[in-house]
This record gives sequence, structure tokens and C-alpha cells, in this order.
Amino acid sequence: MPSISLEKEKNKTKPTELRQDLVTGDWVVISTVRAKRPDEFAKKEADEEHQIGVRDCLFCDPVASGQEKDVLIYGTGNDDWSLRVFPNKYPAFSRPTGGQINHKEEGPYFWMDSIGYHEVIVTRDHKKHLGQMDPVMVAEVLDAYQSRYIDLMNKKSVNYIDIFHNHGKSAGASIPHPHSQLIAVPVVSPYVDSELAGAEKYHRMNKHCVYCAMIEWEREAHKRIVFENEDFLVFCPFAARANFEMWILPKKHKPYFERISEEEKIAGGEALQKAIAKLDKALNNPDFNFYIHTSPCDGKDYPHYHWHIEILPKLNIWAGFEVSTGIEIVTISPEDAAEYLRGV
Amino acid sequence: MPSISLEKEKNKTKPTELRQDLVTGDWVVISTVRAKRPDEFAKKEADEEHQIGVRDCLFCDPVASGQEKDVLIYGTGNDDWSLRVFPNKYPAFSRPTGGQINHKEEGPYFWMDSIGYHEVIVTRDHKKHLGQMDPVMVAEVLDAYQSRYIDLMNKKSVNYIDIFHNHGKSAGASIPHPHSQLIAVPVVSPYVDSELAGAEKYHRMNKHCVYCAMIEWEREAHKRIVFENEDFLVFCPFAARANFEMWILPKKHKPYFERISEEEKIAGGEALQKAIAKLDKALNNPDFNFYIHTSPCDGKDYPHYHWHIEILPKLNIWAGFEVSTGIEIVTISPEDAAEYLRGV
Repeated sequence: MPSISLEKEKNKTKPTELRQDLVTGDWVVISTVRAKRPDEFAKKEADEEHQIGVRDCLFCDPVASGQEKDVLIYGTGNDDWSLRVFPNKYPAFSRPTGGQINHKEEGPYFWMDSIGYHEVIVTRDHKKHLGQMDPVMVAEVLDAYQSRYIDLMNKKSVNYIDIFHNHGKSAGASIPHPHSQLIAVPVVSPYVDSELAGAEKYHRMNKHCVYCAMIEWEREAHKRIVFENEDFLVFCPFAARANFEMWILPKKHKPYFERISEEEKIAGGEALQKAIAKLDKALNNPDFNFYIHTSPCDGKDYPHYHWHIEILPKLNIWAGFEVSTGIEIVTISPEDAAEYLRGV
Repeated sequence: MPSISLEKEKNKTKPTELRQDLVTGDWVVISTVRAKRPDEFAKKEADEEHQIGVRDCLFCDPVASGQEKDVLIYGTGNDDWSLRVFPNKYPAFSRPTGGQINHKEEGPYFWMDSIGYHEVIVTRDHKKHLGQMDPVMVAEVLDAYQSRYIDLMNKKSVNYIDIFHNHGKSAGASIPHPHSQLIAVPVVSPYVDSELAGAEKYHRMNKHCVYCAMIEWEREAHKRIVFENEDFLVFCPFAARANFEMWILPKKHKPYFERISEEEKIAGGEALQKAIAKLDKALNNPDFNFYIHTSPCDGKDYPHYHWHIEILPKLNIWAGFEVSTGIEIVTISPEDAAEYLRGV
């Protein structure tokens, strides 16, 4: 098997690298010593849960299964719908019941009621994940994200809105029917906070958006790009925190996801569909999370931030070193991952 | 089953809470809406790997299995040993081969050779994890940590030393024989960096160590303490990031792990052994990581930091919301977890 020994030979000559995230300053290790070939990351067998039929599914007929009332529906209801959004039946954040958020102290500690909105965005087809859908349908999903975002962004006590998607059991999807979630919360995500600070600092030093600088360089270097259309660039980030991580960035400088245009939703839908389809094909439907990172909705402006989508496959375990330091170790370089994803 | 309905009743009245980490300022959600009873977190069955016998184990006889040469051994060698330390055969960081660390730039990005030391600390008995050992043996493990730390802390290119332990497959232990790892690296852990900044800020504002303030309050409130001896306090942190998380803090203000005294190793060994034994008993040998957070060895002093051990059980999946925001959701409060752990 010459391709394997070639691969091993290639790895031998590569030193391990510590790469710095350009935005946050965090570090990752690219260590290909124990590397497998890209196709060896492919999922061996399907989750049992994903075999569950339509009959037992809570999201195939949300009304019959006793979900909360829709807050958004595309279609006329009953059996005519393509997408619906309803509050999560077991919310991590409870809806405000009026009045104030309670802030409390206990000795030196501080806490407050975890008030917010937690919604589920469900597409119709039980068996079609976003990578298998028509790109126009994925654009509809982005449209639903935007619509719910705009409805919630000015609510009292909402300062950040997190939109994410869990695919597969190990990525936290307890229900196999494709669905995304939206959580609107009173505090700003620490991860986004760190990106905001990094973008601000980079702009102060370079008079330039750090994400725009990345796009420029990636298009010039052309070794980590996975897919590109008029409005979006899909690439494996230089300091990837997981094998086959991808980022989807709008090519124009755009701080606020909720201001996405109709054309951008079409192009963004295509980019997201293509990225997930490639992941699916390359690695046999692996588990992953994707999520939107966008500016907070806390009343301030963030002109130097650049919203984007991150796709984080669940292919490696974050073990002791990762959970103690925050330095992730990946075993396939973003360049090799991108080459492989481009090829499928 | 009255205890269950009682539990559910109790949960109903509890609002979900957003708690702030006193040191880093990060947030966690305590959401008991979907809570299980503590004993429902117990592991159902043992990992297959943990059934592997002594015969096939790479660490039962490290010399015979072709591991690297010991850098530390307690005992006279051959068949007389209780603990040995040797370099990891597949290091995430390569040992320096002399000369300089290469720093490189690629467009706007920055990387350097990931040079460092990666060692494995192995205790003798294949079937006894730290919670099952004599506390004096766990003190010997701490002694080995300290000894290797001191040997490596002044090496060129070493600025932080991370000592951690993976227990169980989902926590990243690829070899079931109990072992810890030490990785000495040129960059400071971002997580420790954030704690250093938080400790510094708290000291500036309060003229007091933030960890000492926690110890004082925890001993007064006495609702999150799991175990205590003369030198160490074991408790579930107020803003726990995982169900049943525990911290082990030296009671006296101590910034540097490597300065631990003989008496403290004995007391620390007891505290660590008790904490793991309780976790084992309460949850049927669950998977977990523990690790030491201590001051960097980068030539600077960190008088306001306070070294400690964190034990992070792998009982929940960090899904889309957690990986996108850095805000973890736990479903059992640290108060309930501590009560349960105290009782076993």
C-alpha cells in the first residue's frame, strides 16, 4: 500500500508545530506524529439513534408530540410546513416572567437568574441533514435564524444570541431529527468576547479587520480553502482546534449576522450546504457542531468584528492536556484536511 | 418511589442560575430542569479496555514493551519498582535537538516548533487507580510530579509545565493502566493565564488572594465541602463547569506547586485519594481528568496565584452551546454534588 507509507514518510519529516490563533492569541498544536490518513477518520458505523424512524420522532410532528407552540412556521401549518421554530421544552434558560432579573451574592460569589430564550429550529425531513438538502432550503434555515434573531435581539435582558446546531450523539444531539437551536442570553459569550478583543486589538495595530486579513491571505495562499462562491469563503483555519474544522466567512466586512441580505442568504446557504456535504462524504457522516459567532446585541456597536460560522467536527477527544490548558492538539494539518475536503 | 418525586418537586422550585467564576469572570449555567438524581450519573458498565489484562499491557513492564528509558524510578529497577517516569513514545511536543526554536510567519500568521517534554508517570499496579491506592502511594505520585517539575522547569524553552491525568476512555486514556502525564511547553496555558489575570485583578481590588477568599467562605458556608484535612480543602466549586467537579486547594497561600513540602505531599496525597475514591464510589468509577494549575516557570514571580488541583468528571457532553460560547451547562448543583460526595 504505497499511499500509506508515503503518508508516513511525509509525516516523519514534519516537525510538530505550535500555531497561534490570529484573533484570540490562543495556541494549538499540529502534531502529525500519530497521524492517520484523512479517510481513517471516517465514522465506522451509524448511531443507533439515527435509525429511529419517523414514527417515534418528537420533531416530525411537533404538535402531536406535544412541543410548545410555534413562534415561526414556514408553510400554512398542519401538514403543510417546511420549517418551524418553537421554544425548547426543557430550556437551559427560562423565559422572563416579567419584572427584574434577580442578581444575588453569596459570600464573595455572584449569580443571577438564568433568564433568556431557548428555541428549536426544525426542518421537515427527518432523514435529510443540511448537507443533503437543496441549498435553497439551507438558505431558508439562515432566514429563520435571522428572523428569530431580529425578534429577540431587543428583548430586555438579551445581550447575546447564540445559534448552533448539534449533529450526532457525541456532538450533543439527543434527538436525531435535524434541528438547530437558538439561545438568547443576558451575558456575552466569553469566546466571542475574546474574539471581539482580538479584532479590536488587531484593528488598532493594523487599521484593518483581522478576518478580512485572513480572507485576503487565504485566497492568495490557496492551500486551506475548501469552497468559495461570490459572497462566502469556506476554509480550514490556520490554527484549527479540531481535525477538519472549517470556517465560513462572508467575504465582505460584515459585523452583524442579522443584517445578512437575501443574496447573502442564498450564497451562505450554498456554502454551508457544501461544507457539510463534503464533511459527510469525506468522513461518512461524522458528528459535528456548527454555530454562528456574531456581534453581541447589547446596545454597543462592534464595527471591527466580522461574523462567521464555525464547523467543529467531533473527531478527537479533548483530554487532560486540552481541558487543563485550553491548548488543543490536532493530528491532521488544516492544509491536508482542506486538500482532502476539496477533493471529495 | 417517593425520593424521585421529592427530587422533582424540589427542582421545580429552583430557578436556573447563571453563576460567575470568581477568578476568571466566566459564566456557567446551573440548570436543574432536566436534572437526574445524583446516583443516576453512575456509569452503567465498565469500558472494554479496562478489562485488558496485565499480559497485554504496555505499562506493566515498560522495558519489555519497548518504552523509552526511565528518567525517574522509585525502586531499584527490574522487578522492584513502585513508580516510573519515561518520555512518551508519541510526544505531542518533541524534545529539543539543540539550538534554537524556529519561529516562522506565514502571511499574517505565526507559528513555532512545538518543542518541549512529554513524559508518562506510571504507578505499578495495573488494577489500582489513585482512589484505590494507599494515600501514601498517592503522596509518592505527587513527589514524582514535583521531582520531574523541578528537573524541567529551568530548561530552555520551557515556560509552563502541565501535569494531568486521564482516567477512562472518554477522558482520553488510551492505555487503561493508571498513569499521569507531564507536558513542559514554551507557551503559557491560556486557561492558567486567565486565572493569573483574575487573581491579579482580585488582589489589586481586595488586597487578598481570590483563592484564599474562596477557602475562607467555603469553610464558613460549609455546603460545597467534600473533604478537608490539615493542609487541603476539597470542594465543589461555586461555578462548576461539569457535574461533580471538585477542586483541591492548599489551605495556606501557595503560588508554586513545586515548592510543596513533605507534609503537604502526605496531606495532598490523602486529599486526592479521598476525592477520587468518593467519585469512584458515588458514580461507579466514572471517567475523569484531573490536573494541576500552578504558576508558570517563565522567570517571573506570581505572588498572588494559588496552585491547586481540578478534577473534571466526564459526565456531560459539551455540545453546540458550550463549544460556541464557553458557557457550560451543568444539571446538578455543586451543593447537591458535594452533599452526595460527602455521604459516600
